Amino acid sequence: MPLTRISLLRGKPPEYRRAIADAVYAAMREDFGVPADDLFTTITQHDPGDIVYTPEYLGIEHDDDIVIIQITANNTRTVEKKQAFFASIADRLAKNPGIAPNNVIINLIDVMKENWSFGNGIAQYVDPPTQ
Amino acid sequence: MPLTRISLLRGKPPEYRRAIADAVYAAMREDFGVPADDLFTTITQHDPGDIVYTPEYLGIEHDDDIVIIQITANNTRTVEKKQAFFASIADRLAKNPGIAPNNVIINLIDVMKENWSFGNGIAQYVDPPTQ
Amino acid sequence: MPLTRISLLRGKPPEYRRAIADAVYAAMREDFGVPADDLFTTITQHDPGDIVYTPEYLGIEHDDDIVIIQITANNTRTVEKKQAFFASIADRLAKNPGIAPNNVIINLIDVMKENWSFGNGIAQYVDPPTQ
Repeated sequence: MPLTRISLLRGKPPEYRRAIADAVYAAMREDFGVPADDLFTTITQHDPGDIVYTPEYLGIEHDDDIVIIQITANNTRTVEKKQAFFASIADRLAKNPGIAPNNVIINLIDVMKENWSFGNGIAQYVDPPTQ
Repeated sequence: MPLTRISLLRGKPPEYRRAIADAVYAAMREDFGVPADDLFTTITQHDPGDIVYTPEYLGIEHDDDIVIIQITANNTRTVEKKQAFFASIADRLAKNPGIAPNNVIINLIDVMKENWSFGNGIAQYVDPPTQ
Repeated sequence: MPLTRISLLRGKPPEYRRAIADAVYAAMREDFGVPADDLFTTITQHDPGDIVYTPEYLGIEHDDDIVIIQITANNTRTVEKKQAFFASIADRLAKNPGIAPNNVIINLIDVMKENWSFGNGIAQYVDPPTQ
């Protein structure tokens, strides 16, 4: 159910972009309780200057390799789970495609389980199921 | 008030894209209690590979005609209303521009009524009105 | 912490787009209690026809200079603060880059403070700090 939106500057090859999506999905599976095959991610490549970011915030520096990851997910996770998820994403992105952890910005948007349809116009997470 | 974000892969003509926006708006008007002329929609055409999706989740298959529709709206709808809205969107998209219902992914983000300004720097839904 | 997403039609020069980001940031600093250097903004330039908007809603007219500003921020602001923030954004955009206030659409998404990582895989706003 998470819907992931990845924003980065234009100029990275397809494999690099795909590796970001894969890393976030792996972190979801391992550390955020997301079911298998629950993968819906958009990647937006922005024109030069179209990601406007602080060079430093909270002592952490950023440059044009910045990646902003906004994830909409069900509101069922604890603070500790969110912390573990963030760490997992940053660790995986450092390994592949090799993004410095300081350049990984993450934001979660919590929603209710009835706020999703994964096809066929059905709210699959509503209980009792309507299928 | 809904702000609708439609994401699809690049390659569909303008009329196809516009038909998606029109279908979602029609569903809002008929089945989600949205006022007339309350239409604010962005469409983003992603480069090849920049929508990363599961080939199958919950028994529903997806392909490169996938459309992801994320709608931010006031938090005033019941679960039943959301279910009817999802069904209405999928039905309308199947008719025009002819998107298979399995390829229609929908997510809602609920917000409070004071979270909107439709111009002039005013929060028009705040009561008492500030206009 | 706010993550700002600015959507406009393609065709405006870089300085114009940057001025929008700067105006929203200035409004955040002055009127929304946002810390210095807390600036994370994406700008998306949409193809012709890919912002679908009502010509008039609530008596306010819109045209192709429409700018849609969606801001995800912590859920700590009062209604009055949000109203002041909207007015501040519209005022600043009217001055530079010169956007008519009727064309400024704003939406806020409220999230919890633990929903952010500004780098290094750490949820910096969680108390006690995990750094």
